[in-house]
Amino acid sequence: MKGLTPVHLKDIERAHAALRGVLHDIPVSSSRTFSQLSGADLFLKCENLQKTGSFKVRGAYNKIIRLTRETERAQVIAASAGNHAQGVAWSAAKLGADAVIVMPEGTPIAKVQATEGYGAKIILHGGCYDDAYAKACEVMEETGAEFVHPFDDEEVIAGQATVAVEILKDMPTADVVLVPAGGGGLLAGIAYYIKQINPRIRVVGVQAEGADAIVRSFRTRSLSETDTAQTIADGIAVKRPGAITTDYINKYVDDMVTVSDDEIAEAILLLLERHKMAVEPAGAASLAAALHQRADVAGKRIVCLLSGGNIDVSFIQKIVEKGLITRGRLMKFRTIMPDVPGSLGRFSTIVSECRANIIMVQHDRLSTGLSLSDAILHVACELASMEHGRELVARLEQAGYEIVLES
Amino acid sequence: MKGLTPVHLKDIERAHAALRGVLHDIPVSSSRTFSQLSGADLFLKCENLQKTGSFKVRGAYNKIIRLTRETERAQVIAASAGNHAQGVAWSAAKLGADAVIVMPEGTPIAKVQATEGYGAKIILHGGCYDDAYAKACEVMEETGAEFVHPFDDEEVIAGQATVAVEILKDMPTADVVLVPAGGGGLLAGIAYYIKQINPRIRVVGVQAEGADAIVRSFRTRSLSETDTAQTIADGIAVKRPGAITTDYINKYVDDMVTVSDDEIAEAILLLLERHKMAVEPAGAASLAAALHQRADVAGKRIVCLLSGGNIDVSFIQKIVEKGLITRGRLMKFRTIMPDVPGSLGRFSTIVSECRANIIMVQHDRLSTGLSLSDAILHVACELASMEHGRELVARLEQAGYEIVLES
Repeated sequence: MKGLTPVHLKDIERAHAALRGVLHDIPVSSSRTFSQLSGADLFLKCENLQKTGSFKVRGAYNKIIRLTRETERAQVIAASAGNHAQGVAWSAAKLGADAVIVMPEGTPIAKVQATEGYGAKIILHGGCYDDAYAKACEVMEETGAEFVHPFDDEEVIAGQATVAVEILKDMPTADVVLVPAGGGGLLAGIAYYIKQINPRIRVVGVQAEGADAIVRSFRTRSLSETDTAQTIADGIAVKRPGAITTDYINKYVDDMVTVSDDEIAEAILLLLERHKMAVEPAGAASLAAALHQRADVAGKRIVCLLSGGNIDVSFIQKIVEKGLITRGRLMKFRTIMPDVPGSLGRFSTIVSECRANIIMVQHDRLSTGLSLSDAILHVACELASMEHGRELVARLEQAGYEIVLES
Repeated sequence: MKGLTPVHLKDIERAHAALRGVLHDIPVSSSRTFSQLSGADLFLKCENLQKTGSFKVRGAYNKIIRLTRETERAQVIAASAGNHAQGVAWSAAKLGADAVIVMPEGTPIAKVQATEGYGAKIILHGGCYDDAYAKACEVMEETGAEFVHPFDDEEVIAGQATVAVEILKDMPTADVVLVPAGGGGLLAGIAYYIKQINPRIRVVGVQAEGADAIVRSFRTRSLSETDTAQTIADGIAVKRPGAITTDYINKYVDDMVTVSDDEIAEAILLLLERHKMAVEPAGAASLAAALHQRADVAGKRIVCLLSGGNIDVSFIQKIVEKGLITRGRLMKFRTIMPDVPGSLGRFSTIVSECRANIIMVQHDRLSTGLSLSDAILHVACELASMEHGRELVARLEQAGYEIVLES
């Protein structure tokens, strides 16, 4: 392990003991719906329901608790726009330490407020993570505060590994555990722990296609980085994974796979609809991998780790809208109709006879190629199903309307 | 209890033993966010995360398990478009009984499919619950199947009461338990159990303003009904509560309160954002009551029972949109601009300089009272906050645009 202090089982057990009673105790739960959809016997470990909305609080707490034992008034600093910020702020408040969090200036106000709400001092600085990180280093020099790294730190890794302690307690018979991976702290800790306790259980890391540095690192058994990290899964959009985490992952993980943003979005919608849970894109990546058979899951007992739930409500709205269209619950189309009185009334009557609900209409008389006596109508309808949509289109076509679907 | 077989503690304990290992074990969880917002020490009992997405499975299972002990191949029938349908279908499948569920014809396809997915035979009949109920009675006569009432049945009440067993186990020091109530099965069971075990704990029922029959029944100590039941909380939109349930409620419940649809919608959005959970309107009523101080909650240890999570995703979308507007994250406005080339470009530049994101523009030249050289622009923008919206309006007004907010 390149001269670094390696993680030991006893560190993980100590972290687990420290966290007991502090965090929510969320047992692994079975999912009939996702078992049917995946062909596996599928279970969920819901860290989206954890304090602060993600597993990140585990590593932060484990780091900060040691500092508070060594110092009278511990001071910590972190750079993050996301779950790590909230994990550090919450843990510091709980343990009586002072926390400063540097966030990039574009950070959504809701995340700033949530972090501030836990009692941390917030510094908004720079346009991206690297700027915020540089600022955090400055503040660290000035104040002597201890930096809490989001992933590349043994104490943080040992903290994240406590998720595996709980998974093995609830599911000692698991065959595969699927874990989202960005910087790799969670995956490193989980793989290390599981392989010590029961090497029969396969540990598979999941990353988004557009940010696969950690997958490349695993395949080449080196530390690879990418120029960009383009994915909706902001929680794992990491260009350069950790050096320490990569060592652990290359040694203990069985496989690394990727999923597309569309697959992640579909998993988010299914989790919301069928399991009544909001899961952030990074958190849903593990389920997306199971549903799309990226790992050998058929007939196996699979645990998908849902790593976090901090998804913006306006983003949920976009995913729901997209999902409604994909499933035929929302249909957008255009049609041409005579630009004369009564025309819209006749059209609307047919739509309502089909029990479809018009939610948007735009009337356009200015398109090129349109006869002077015609107008284009852009319509959005709510429907019961894809089949219902086909019925509506058939009825309108019978009545002489030419229907062109839009998306 | 008017000659009916009353519920006994041992029935509830037997139901609880039967359900152990069958349902998800979801411990009561603390909520820092809602404690701060309510001034109480607030805890959630999340039956939205229960099998089938609601507590209804408890009563149905308890009813059907007795039948399967008495009959070789039990047959059950129910009328419901909602959670009861899924609870009966799921329990019957689990216990090896045959289930027929009569649903009104307008039932959303997703609910029909979910119920069918549990293996029940579905009959779509009539336009409302009463029609479906009449049909279920017919089928019952023909087939000899046993009717599973959604609330007015002692075995169902004893099943629902098992939620209280779990609440008292996790939170023996609770001061107040808030429970959504429509027909009253859940509230009756919970109030009866809690008052036997610890009469110090207050039990408060919560209903939507627009469907308050059960509240009137409580206040007049009689069985009242209403002509209409108008609320977004479809799960508790009941015009006539149960006779048996009303007896229990009048005897054991401490108070009944109401909440508005807007208060329920706000609670749903907060649960989604802060607790990463989808909760249906009926299920969120208890939290809405706590947040709006409908019960004496200040400084007390409060448990809000979130009774179910079966909310349609398109409805979530509407609640999110409304919430985004209320919080200033989405702003709709109109303005007048010269109908000349470059006009929209100039306007858009100012908006983008303010870092607001235009998501909808409609250009309208046909309004009455509009000068021939002008056009109305309808705009929707995404913003960071209310403050950000005020800055944008100020910038646009400085540049000479008159801004009229729309909602």
